[in-house]
Parts: sequence; structure tokens; C-alpha cells
Amino acid sequence: MGGAADCVFCKIIAGAIPSHLVYEDDAVRAFLDIGPLSPGHLLLVPIEHYRTMEETPEQTAASLGAALPRLVSAVRQATGAAGVNVLQNNGRCAGQEVEHVHVHIIPRSSGDGLGYRWHPKSYQPGEAETIRDRIKQFLQG
Amino acid sequence: MGGAADCVFCKIIAGAIPSHLVYEDDAVRAFLDIGPLSPGHLLLVPIEHYRTMEETPEQTAASLGAALPRLVSAVRQATGAAGVNVLQNNGRCAGQEVEHVHVHIIPRSSGDGLGYRWHPKSYQPGEAETIRDRIKQFLQG
Repeated sequence: MGGAADCVFCKIIAGAIPSHLVYEDDAVRAFLDIGPLSPGHLLLVPIEHYRTMEETPEQTAASLGAALPRLVSAVRQATGAAGVNVLQNNGRCAGQEVEHVHVHIIPRSSGDGLGYRWHPKSYQPGEAETIRDRIKQFLQG
Repeated sequence: MGGAADCVFCKIIAGAIPSHLVYEDDAVRAFLDIGPLSPGHLLLVPIEHYRTMEETPEQTAASLGAALPRLVSAVRQATGAAGVNVLQNNGRCAGQEVEHVHVHIIPRSSGDGLGYRWHPKSYQPGEAETIRDRIKQFLQG
């Protein structure tokens, strides 16, 4: 519970660092990313400090989800974007730079040079079944 | 409410198309993406058909969020991944290929060639305040 002493998002939530706040409720805040990938790029964060989605309580993760429809809609309308990416990175190798769980809401347009690098692969026979069973084991564990 | 006649995810949910299901509750399903960016790449979808996050009811979006901590954790442990991206695309220009709102859960490792194209910009003086105010107007509207 409470803020982490050296966390920039906890400082923003506490008002110790200024931000351009657009939304707040009992569980979450949303404000402009100061290094936007496109104008209107938002960050949605829980008020409480959790490092990753894995560490986030189910109810807090539900509050993040619940805020998305209205935030995605407002950002798209305010920017005139044709699309929106919602992105949440866990771990440094996955692009997470601040260790306070956060959701990027990124307005998109054709030819903007953004987006996820998409190089789909395929499973060998039996491979999908094996990995499905392993994931289900950890879900039950 | 109910399934869309030509929606591949509605057919998977109904069992008309097979899938490698890993999780189900009253509101959502999660199954392996058949064109995985990395092994264990999951799709998390609401049972009901909504095209985009904007069209998704708040309670359904909360159910998607609530499932994320345990799914991210299970996929990371099952694959041994060092990180995980959670990605939800809205609109064709944003990479959405199936018009049934869905969340990608993508295991990550260093040097895997995946991830979001990250080219941050900065706001001109006054620009952030203007866009913040526009977003807040649409949130209130």
C-alpha cells in the first residue's frame, strides 16, 4: 500500500511532480505521457504502487480495465485518431521503464510509423497442446 | 448481445471452431493465438461480441482487466519469459484484424525482435494543456 519513495508515478499521483491529469477515480489516474508517441498519448495507472500486472490485485486490474472504454473513446475523439493501441509492458525486456504498473493509450493513424512489430510464427504438431497444458497448470497452481 | 454470425472469435467461443483454451469465467475466455508472436501468446476476449474497446461495456472491460494478473503470471511462468506485453488494438490502422475486442498477452525475451516501435516526441509550449482540455471535454460529454 501507499507510494514507493523513488517512483515517479507515485510522485505524480501525490502531486509532488506536476502532470496533465485527464481522469481520476477511487482506484486509478490517467495523465498525458510527457514523451508521447503521438499527441494525446495517455498513461493509466493505479493509485497504489505495484510493479507489474502480475503483482496487481485482481480488483485493481479490474479498475484499470473499467476505465479503458471511456478513455479510449475520449482520446480518439479529442485527437481525431483513426485507431488506438492499448499497451501494458511488464519487465525491462518488454519495454517497461517505470516500475509502477501502467497502461499506455496511444492514438494511431495510417502511416504514423508506430505499432507492434508483428512477425507471427506457427506451432509444430503437439506444441500448442503442450504449452496450453503448462499454462493451465500454472493457472491452477 | 450474443455472437456475430461471421466472427471467428464468436465461433471459437461457441465451440464451432476449435481452440486451445486456457481460461474461462462468466465473462471472458483466453486461448492460444494460432499465429503466435512467441510461444504461449494468448488472446483474451469477452464472451459477448463488441467490436472495439470503445464499444465494450465498463463491466466487461473490468472483467478483461481482472483476468490479466493471473494470465500474465501463468504465461510468464509456463514459458520462462523474462517479460510480457499486454496489447489491445482498436481499428485497422492500429493493427486490429478481428473485429471482436481482444487482448494479446505476448511473452517476451531479450533480443526476440518483438515490441512496440518507440519513437517519443515532445509537446510544444501550451500544446499539452490544449490536448488535456480536449480529452477532458470528451470525458465529460
